[in-house]
Amino acid sequence: MKATAGEAYPRKGANRGLSVLDLFFRIISAVGTLGSAVAVGTTDETLPFITQFFRFRARYDDIPSFTFFVIANAIVCGYLVLSLPISIYHIIRSKANNSRVILIIFDAAMLALVTAGASAAAAIVYLAHKGNTSTNWFAICQQFNSFCKRISGSLIGSFGSSVLLVLTITTAAIAISRR
Amino acid sequence: MKATAGEAYPRKGANRGLSVLDLFFRIISAVGTLGSAVAVGTTDETLPFITQFFRFRARYDDIPSFTFFVIANAIVCGYLVLSLPISIYHIIRSKANNSRVILIIFDAAMLALVTAGASAAAAIVYLAHKGNTSTNWFAICQQFNSFCKRISGSLIGSFGSSVLLVLTITTAAIAISRR
Repeated sequence: MKATAGEAYPRKGANRGLSVLDLFFRIISAVGTLGSAVAVGTTDETLPFITQFFRFRARYDDIPSFTFFVIANAIVCGYLVLSLPISIYHIIRSKANNSRVILIIFDAAMLALVTAGASAAAAIVYLAHKGNTSTNWFAICQQFNSFCKRISGSLIGSFGSSVLLVLTITTAAIAISRR
Repeated sequence: MKATAGEAYPRKGANRGLSVLDLFFRIISAVGTLGSAVAVGTTDETLPFITQFFRFRARYDDIPSFTFFVIANAIVCGYLVLSLPISIYHIIRSKANNSRVILIIFDAAMLALVTAGASAAAAIVYLAHKGNTSTNWFAICQQFNSFCKRISGSLIGSFGSSVLLVLTITTAAIAISRR
């Protein structure tokens, strides 16, 4: 379908609106992943007593899933910050096409990465809260209360970023199709 | 840019090629998620001895992350099967646009879901293999060897589907941009 001059302008405006939304999602998402990475990366709780069964100290790098969580969030945050100039370029040149396709592909890969990190950490935090009787893994959150709370809170930033990346892919796909 | 008649035909052919690729990715991905869901959903290992510390029986639904893994894979498999007719429609009508955008959005959401399931299961399987000394969670894979092997194997199908969904989003984005 060929757009007439009368149709072309509102479409251009709508695409600009989508690009602004895209930039907005990217900024919030970058802040969310940064916050999650820093909050978990700086956890270090030592309890003031010791027994023969527990080393009463909890750091994020005691558990590989939390290390992965921090790394995944840091990578995605870095990518999002680097993608901001391209997102701003899309606001200026709303007809840009190839750069949007490239961003969709990277966004999808980063969506997978941040979701993997958040989900692995969620699986372990759930175990830390509830324990599991059939495998004899005991809950540790009674002891390491602030450790567990901080990591649980960080999951919000990370899963929030996943949702925002889905929305980013959505806006980019709509923008390309409306060109 | 307005395509001339001479340009339009190769583009249409290229889009048809992308649509065929898309269908191919969806079929493999559906098989991968189905296999993963069935393999984990039917695990049930009972060991021929019992002590006071362990209930020597392992089923996928003893551990919530594995239940989530099975459900996530089943949902994504169902979605992929339902999307096959639309994918075939795209081969026939390579200029289809809105339906591609809708598929991209759902693909992105399903990518997040299958990655979350696979990653949560991977975090727990890793723990089952290696244990964790700082939290006093012991490895259980020495006992439940075939259980662990089956779940580890299923992760391949599930993470493979994640990668294929990224490729599906890629092909759809390229197809829309080339219209």
